[in-house]
Amino acid sequence: MKYTAHINVMPLKELLDPQGKAVNNSLHNLGLTNVNDVRIGKHISLHVEAAGKDEAEKITREACKRLLANQVMESFDFTLTEG
Amino acid sequence: MKYTAHINVMPLKELLDPQGKAVNNSLHNLGLTNVNDVRIGKHISLHVEAAGKDEAEKITREACKRLLANQVMESFDFTLTEG
Repeated sequence: MKYTAHINVMPLKELLDPQGKAVNNSLHNLGLTNVNDVRIGKHISLHVEAAGKDEAEKITREACKRLLANQVMESFDFTLTEG
Repeated sequence: MKYTAHINVMPLKELLDPQGKAVNNSLHNLGLTNVNDVRIGKHISLHVEAAGKDEAEKITREACKRLLANQVMESFDFTLTEG
């Protein structure tokens, strides 16, 4: 069966996020002063061919750990949908 | 009230995504050959201070249109949660 994984890779909360900080300032400069705590990470979507949802989850987790996320600096989470 | 916006900015489906293609190939090289159609975009989280959910949505949409997404090449979607 075919699954779609929606993966978010974000900088760890304990770390500074200079890109987020810069965007935060830019939003304020545009007049959007009600916005704060901007953090920027990656969103990755991919298709997984697997026998079941458990296997798809295992494959996605392995992809995150081995390539997509640098766990020293980033955390990841994902959801799986069919199709 | 305080809302958290979870924003995804992705390259348009009609466009090539060379970063996604490179990651796709890397995953295959790592032995994860069941993975395909990798596309990579940005995930942005931010806090919005607004009177209600409608206003929070309006502010988030404006932030996406004016700064976060380049609508020539990217599409965006977001969800809002309280707190």
